[in-house]
Amino acid sequence: MNEKTLKRLLEDIKAGKISINEALASLKTLPFEELPFATIDTHRSLRQGFPEVIYGEGKSAAQIIEIASRMIRAGENVLITRVDAKKAASIKKKLPKASFDKTSRTIFIKTHPVKKRGRGTVAVVCAGTSDVPVAEEAAITAECMGNETLRLYDVGVAGIHRLLHKKDELFEANVLVVVAGMEGALASVVAGLVERPVVAVPTSVGYGANLGGVTTLLAMLNSCAAGVSVVNIDNGFGAAYVASLINRD
Amino acid sequence: MNEKTLKRLLEDIKAGKISINEALASLKTLPFEELPFATIDTHRSLRQGFPEVIYGEGKSAAQIIEIASRMIRAGENVLITRVDAKKAASIKKKLPKASFDKTSRTIFIKTHPVKKRGRGTVAVVCAGTSDVPVAEEAAITAECMGNETLRLYDVGVAGIHRLLHKKDELFEANVLVVVAGMEGALASVVAGLVERPVVAVPTSVGYGANLGGVTTLLAMLNSCAAGVSVVNIDNGFGAAYVASLINRD
Amino acid sequence: MNEKTLKRLLEDIKAGKISINEALASLKTLPFEELPFATIDTHRSLRQGFPEVIYGEGKSAAQIIEIASRMIRAGENVLITRVDAKKAASIKKKLPKASFDKTSRTIFIKTHPVKKRGRGTVAVVCAGTSDVPVAEEAAITAECMGNETLRLYDVGVAGIHRLLHKKDELFEANVLVVVAGMEGALASVVAGLVERPVVAVPTSVGYGANLGGVTTLLAMLNSCAAGVSVVNIDNGFGAAYVASLINRD
Amino acid sequence: MNEKTLKRLLEDIKAGKISINEALASLKTLPFEELPFATIDTHRSLRQGFPEVIYGEGKSAAQIIEIASRMIRAGENVLITRVDAKKAASIKKKLPKASFDKTSRTIFIKTHPVKKRGRGTVAVVCAGTSDVPVAEEAAITAECMGNETLRLYDVGVAGIHRLLHKKDELFEANVLVVVAGMEGALASVVAGLVERPVVAVPTSVGYGANLGGVTTLLAMLNSCAAGVSVVNIDNGFGAAYVASLINRD
Amino acid sequence: MNEKTLKRLLEDIKAGKISINEALASLKTLPFEELPFATIDTHRSLRQGFPEVIYGEGKSAAQIIEIASRMIRAGENVLITRVDAKKAASIKKKLPKASFDKTSRTIFIKTHPVKKRGRGTVAVVCAGTSDVPVAEEAAITAECMGNETLRLYDVGVAGIHRLLHKKDELFEANVLVVVAGMEGALASVVAGLVERPVVAVPTSVGYGANLGGVTTLLAMLNSCAAGVSVVNIDNGFGAAYVASLINRD
Amino acid sequence: MNEKTLKRLLEDIKAGKISINEALASLKTLPFEELPFATIDTHRSLRQGFPEVIYGEGKSAAQIIEIASRMIRAGENVLITRVDAKKAASIKKKLPKASFDKTSRTIFIKTHPVKKRGRGTVAVVCAGTSDVPVAEEAAITAECMGNETLRLYDVGVAGIHRLLHKKDELFEANVLVVVAGMEGALASVVAGLVERPVVAVPTSVGYGANLGGVTTLLAMLNSCAAGVSVVNIDNGFGAAYVASLINRD
Amino acid sequence: MNEKTLKRLLEDIKAGKISINEALASLKTLPFEELPFATIDTHRSLRQGFPEVIYGEGKSAAQIIEIASRMIRAGENVLITRVDAKKAASIKKKLPKASFDKTSRTIFIKTHPVKKRGRGTVAVVCAGTSDVPVAEEAAITAECMGNETLRLYDVGVAGIHRLLHKKDELFEANVLVVVAGMEGALASVVAGLVERPVVAVPTSVGYGANLGGVTTLLAMLNSCAAGVSVVNIDNGFGAAYVASLINRD
Amino acid sequence: MNEKTLKRLLEDIKAGKISINEALASLKTLPFEELPFATIDTHRSLRQGFPEVIYGEGKSAAQIIEIASRMIRAGENVLITRVDAKKAASIKKKLPKASFDKTSRTIFIKTHPVKKRGRGTVAVVCAGTSDVPVAEEAAITAECMGNETLRLYDVGVAGIHRLLHKKDELFEANVLVVVAGMEGALASVVAGLVERPVVAVPTSVGYGANLGGVTTLLAMLNSCAAGVSVVNIDNGFGAAYVASLINRD
Repeated sequence: MNEKTLKRLLEDIKAGKISINEALASLKTLPFEELPFATIDTHRSLRQGFPEVIYGEGKSAAQIIEIASRMIRAGENVLITRVDAKKAASIKKKLPKASFDKTSRTIFIKTHPVKKRGRGTVAVVCAGTSDVPVAEEAAITAECMGNETLRLYDVGVAGIHRLLHKKDELFEANVLVVVAGMEGALASVVAGLVERPVVAVPTSVGYGANLGGVTTLLAMLNSCAAGVSVVNIDNGFGAAYVASLINRD
Repeated sequence: MNEKTLKRLLEDIKAGKISINEALASLKTLPFEELPFATIDTHRSLRQGFPEVIYGEGKSAAQIIEIASRMIRAGENVLITRVDAKKAASIKKKLPKASFDKTSRTIFIKTHPVKKRGRGTVAVVCAGTSDVPVAEEAAITAECMGNETLRLYDVGVAGIHRLLHKKDELFEANVLVVVAGMEGALASVVAGLVERPVVAVPTSVGYGANLGGVTTLLAMLNSCAAGVSVVNIDNGFGAAYVASLINRD
Repeated sequence: MNEKTLKRLLEDIKAGKISINEALASLKTLPFEELPFATIDTHRSLRQGFPEVIYGEGKSAAQIIEIASRMIRAGENVLITRVDAKKAASIKKKLPKASFDKTSRTIFIKTHPVKKRGRGTVAVVCAGTSDVPVAEEAAITAECMGNETLRLYDVGVAGIHRLLHKKDELFEANVLVVVAGMEGALASVVAGLVERPVVAVPTSVGYGANLGGVTTLLAMLNSCAAGVSVVNIDNGFGAAYVASLINRD
Repeated sequence: MNEKTLKRLLEDIKAGKISINEALASLKTLPFEELPFATIDTHRSLRQGFPEVIYGEGKSAAQIIEIASRMIRAGENVLITRVDAKKAASIKKKLPKASFDKTSRTIFIKTHPVKKRGRGTVAVVCAGTSDVPVAEEAAITAECMGNETLRLYDVGVAGIHRLLHKKDELFEANVLVVVAGMEGALASVVAGLVERPVVAVPTSVGYGANLGGVTTLLAMLNSCAAGVSVVNIDNGFGAAYVASLINRD
Repeated sequence: MNEKTLKRLLEDIKAGKISINEALASLKTLPFEELPFATIDTHRSLRQGFPEVIYGEGKSAAQIIEIASRMIRAGENVLITRVDAKKAASIKKKLPKASFDKTSRTIFIKTHPVKKRGRGTVAVVCAGTSDVPVAEEAAITAECMGNETLRLYDVGVAGIHRLLHKKDELFEANVLVVVAGMEGALASVVAGLVERPVVAVPTSVGYGANLGGVTTLLAMLNSCAAGVSVVNIDNGFGAAYVASLINRD
Repeated sequence: MNEKTLKRLLEDIKAGKISINEALASLKTLPFEELPFATIDTHRSLRQGFPEVIYGEGKSAAQIIEIASRMIRAGENVLITRVDAKKAASIKKKLPKASFDKTSRTIFIKTHPVKKRGRGTVAVVCAGTSDVPVAEEAAITAECMGNETLRLYDVGVAGIHRLLHKKDELFEANVLVVVAGMEGALASVVAGLVERPVVAVPTSVGYGANLGGVTTLLAMLNSCAAGVSVVNIDNGFGAAYVASLINRD
Repeated sequence: MNEKTLKRLLEDIKAGKISINEALASLKTLPFEELPFATIDTHRSLRQGFPEVIYGEGKSAAQIIEIASRMIRAGENVLITRVDAKKAASIKKKLPKASFDKTSRTIFIKTHPVKKRGRGTVAVVCAGTSDVPVAEEAAITAECMGNETLRLYDVGVAGIHRLLHKKDELFEANVLVVVAGMEGALASVVAGLVERPVVAVPTSVGYGANLGGVTTLLAMLNSCAAGVSVVNIDNGFGAAYVASLINRD
Repeated sequence: MNEKTLKRLLEDIKAGKISINEALASLKTLPFEELPFATIDTHRSLRQGFPEVIYGEGKSAAQIIEIASRMIRAGENVLITRVDAKKAASIKKKLPKASFDKTSRTIFIKTHPVKKRGRGTVAVVCAGTSDVPVAEEAAITAECMGNETLRLYDVGVAGIHRLLHKKDELFEANVLVVVAGMEGALASVVAGLVERPVVAVPTSVGYGANLGGVTTLLAMLNSCAAGVSVVNIDNGFGAAYVASLINRD
């Protein structure tokens, strides 16, 4: 189906030659053909209740403002990740609704209330205080995507009692994002306790043989506990996105 | 301290044989002690409807038979992974119910029917024919865990039309396990098409710069499509386990 | 031994001043000596219609100006790569014909019109907006070398429809430069669609397990689609140079 | 367009309702739609004059025979790579036309003469005698794809005169496949001499710090000479495929 | 469940308010619950005579001051590692007792005298002058933990006599921390001389193939001398902590 | 210069045959010469009560028998590590006192009773059943060196309760050898519980991203719990040696 | 163009058959052409007194015999490296003068006495008994090249006195080849003692974090002692070749 | 024990104050004790004619000045490497004789003329203009150590004729330092041409897959030409030191 046949289809609808339902059925299979896809993309994200997400790293404040403005005009919620304080200030000047969270380095622009959805809670569990920025990126992303979240921070395995102490909260989550640096043992211990999927996020916290998070990443992929899958180093957003898909009802 | 001794302690309190302070002192050290955890473990797996799983690599036929026999006596279904044909033959001699699948190198011993459960289908998508063994390990594991499965094999991105051709089936899955070697691009392409979680399994298929699957693993962790999380190289079982947890109702 | 001494040698033979055997002995050691190669070099580049290229990284503005001036005096077009805005400004002060392209960080100094040549079009295909600087380095280099180019940007595989939408343009190219970061899947997908050589350029776009582009590089080398060869990370110039040689009539 | 509409299209042709040219135009855009693609694939390879290629590694003799038989029945030439002597013997028993080349570990089954095509010669240049198997895989592949080839073997840079001695032959090639192990310097030296594209193939020849060919691979990607692009370690077939696409007229 | 609620439960049993079976059910879930672990933690460190340690990297002066103040109020000695001069100045303004050591980048806040303990001396041996900062972090940590220390600096193996010259002092130590960069040979040589445990600390001193200390780390793990165990790169604190545990009487 | 020549030198001084200055000159070059060091070596091992240890890998049965025989004649206990069953059989034929342990692949030849010594118990803690061979190499080595040992096997963190269940035994050990593969989390969890030195042994158990134990090694070096030091992969002997030095009274 | 055609060219000049300018044009392209380089190669090795060397790895006995026979006929001494016992036996059958050394896996075929030359002694120093095969490859190569050699084996740094004991012999060598595995510390210690060039050969002796010798290689490249240069892992031949060039008078 | 106490011991023997056996017992422990080694060190460098060398990286100007002053007072020539322009300026203020070379980042302080020595010329050959700083560090070091040097710069293999053009100069060198980045092919080509030892210095020039010089380093270690040994990345000083030892008469 090309642009011409699409035009004909639309004329047929106008002329009452085919019903809207028939046209809809045709258009449902449209995505891989020659229409302006961007529009469809936009619709899809609205239907899902997911915000549009801008990866802020390497984009100038001006570029972010331009992209975000277009989305705001389309009535969407906008989440911007990896923004530093200076860039955030520039953005807030132009987009006063922008709410910047310093810890997670995210901006959220709420054009309409986030509709709560999801089968249960997304727990964000994190090992040490230096893992908190990545954990917060995950938690805020999950919330912007309509999930109930639960934060369990600073429960690293060096003092296992702190984690065991939170057993009940862990057990109640529907999906768990586990954020840890160093040897990343927390992912294994949590997955050994719960019966729900664990999305592990290695952080680049550590030094020397940590190799910028690669050690943590590899360790998590070798978790002795079943039920763990892993995303890229420091990718709090990615983990929350996977968790949101899992939690979707 | 086990359940029996704990009960006796409580009876002693009730009977006034020991003071409350003495009981407190005893109980304070309780948390890490001899409560019958193992029992709970067994119960848990039965309740979940999950089979017991034995990782066959590096275990002798004799060892596997011993472990499996105990489980069979407990009335459980038993899944054994990473068994070669020779070891399988030895096991079948002693455990005639054992059903060996040569491709996936798995044995399943069904002591009772697998109860179908899960919210939807687990699709197992695989790139090339050499990825099939890992894909089958995933598919069979998912089935033994009570999931409906759908196999979409040999749909690698070198001929993207083969994958697009299966678009409708992809869209109907509740969770997708994507198995690929080489550059692992299939995970990104599938995740870009569907709106459900993709569990990616890198395989060690390839040579030279494939580095035994490490390249594929790293590539999948860098997927440009959101919604992908990754398990260890060739870990079909692990991916199916994660997928089953996600699919659990 | 240079041309002059060689001539003298021959004249001495003719004049019978030295015997043929003596001359033979002298000439035997000739191969690695002072024939004026440098001259041939200059002529060669002029004949090919290729500009002289200066790799700007690590050279001072002064050094670049000196080299470029000599080339300009020789009547050549000059392409300078990897120049930042500040260095470019210094260069433009001295060489007012210099035209700086901020995105690709290249300067082109046109002393004569670029003669169009080549059997067809060099398509530069790129995955995401952050890959554009490398893609532009490739596209501009290809143009300075006399090729018709076609830019297909932001067609990464996370939204495969955007790429398929451009199918016809892809099919018309004689050679394709594919620029991508992260898992680099675009190279495989494009090579699976077209019947022409694909020169893949991994970019250092990404973080964590991307390892500064090494993951993308390795992934592209493991492409499941035949017809892909690879150049160094971020090496847009190198890819365009290869593509120009391929496209040469 | 689905199977049903295709059927209708064909009926329309039969009934003279649309001309064959109109139908052809429709079918041209068919590849990405819901038809049995395999057929189209087959046609394409025939049109290109390329043989079907079976990657023999990890496939049993039986599997190879089955795939090859189907292709032979379709009247195609079949190239099988990475076959050891034992597997080759089994294949020859069933497919007597199979011609096994021990050095390159390839089998070629000629069902019809290979049509010579291509703009010029594909030179296969190789450094040492231990690189010859990979070089031969490249040369034979190139020949099966209809190219004139030229073999320049054992011209490694440790004795640079051997290479320089072959200067004229190097200069006459349209595209050069350079096969080398160890430090892979041959690719740079050749690319510095010629004005045509060099496809470099690192081999796993070497030991210790060669890291199974990874060192050679990385070295070639860092070639100081422009005009070099690289394929995977030991991938003689892949290099020849790229070279054939480049040489195609 | 904390001590208070546990006591109440026991009183209820005694009073017959709940049955033994009800109490059993409650207690079964006890192991991972709210017993006051945190308190034990605090007590433990006091009892051990070890100071509280704050890892200063990535924490702001304000954060460090807040944590340290709480510890000081609890009457503890506080050791802060990885603090630069600027941060140290800010801390000293608020906590005037803070004593900053520039070389080791540590701050020690003594609220009470460090009680000397340990079976013998902790020797800190270091190879070159550039390893001194890490060695000093180790030595100061060991002293803050109550150990007698002995510094043997600049005794690298390039001039083996300097080390041999100190033989008697080496032989008198109860445990040795060996700090070295580059090839880390000092650990092997020292362990070959003494009969006591050697804790090796690789430093990131070096360049090129040193790979930021990874080479030194790997080399130390391959020590040909028995008796060597290794901690992370530049982890002077960690080595001293291990040495203190070993030296504890 | 050996003891005899030294004695003669001193006699010559006494006898006035050489001047003191001449003697000084001779003695100045003494430090690196022929004093009978080897003797001291033999004595040392006897004094320490440590057995002589032969690393069996890569040595033939004949070579091992020869070395062991010499030690036996000297009245020493002999420990041989890394011996396979076949080699062990050959050794036992010649040295009937040799006792082979199949699991740990060690042979112990007891010529005299091992004298118990050490301040406390060496606990050998291991994660999974596949880590047992390395754990047994550690435990047997520790016993041959005169230590009381305690084995705590199969207490991996995937089921943390199994480990916590053994809390009291962990607390009683003087030094702990923790043997684990995969992500190696057990080392961190144990070190977080106890107050004694933990010597961690990564094993090569695992596959894919485990990289032959390198992942476990790196993870353990990044342990978030203080008190952990690490030895080479699978080096049970080395860990036990370090533990024995620590435990020495 | 070969010597014959060159001679004819010169005769034509002399005879006036071609002009000097024509001759010049021909000679300009001479440098890379058919002068009989191969001959020079043969002469060179004879003049140097170096034997011809055949790298045996990956060559069949038949291939080795063929190459060696040609050299023997030319009256040269032949050294063959990396030959196993079985291959050696086949070679000895055909070439009865072949003398096989099992430890170093080398064959030497002496057609004429090796002429002693070199300014001094080449010392081959090696750390442990498992490094001896590589050390012997070096020592035998050095001897076949006409050097006096001195073997100092089993002087690893774990027992530094054994090395110091040999101080005088070390000091007398003109060049030292140091062969070591594991952490390779021997190279640094030796270079710290002597005033002569040290050629270090890392061996693949070790396991786990040794990474097949890469750790040793990297450690040696980071030697804290000046005067060390390094060859590839296990490359005893290469080290001896360098040492022979250094020792050449 | 120092020289004084040793002398007293000998006098006591002579005087009969102690018996020879008592003296023997004392002397047995002598080898590792207080003989004045440091003095010998100073004398040695003076005798060799080598300057004292200070590695400037990571040392403050003040530290360098202090060390250098002491050496100057001892009448030695001083070479300081890895000094930036700013540090050099500070040093020159205090030590006016200091002569700073900007390219090589070295300072030379000549207190007396450098005595020319060495058997021949040390040639420093370098590939590209960006390798010049490392090449100059090598050349200046060699000169400060008394060698005649020859610089052959910008003769990389991408234009092999530039190198061949310098054949005679290459042939005249006694030892060659070859400095190259990227694929480092220059080392192989030079070693293939000459009959003298080649000390190869990889530089960190390059990007992407160059991995900070590690690729060049590995490539050089795999040189297909015998006669090459390698030093650490960018280690111009180290190469010159090795070359000086080789060139020493």
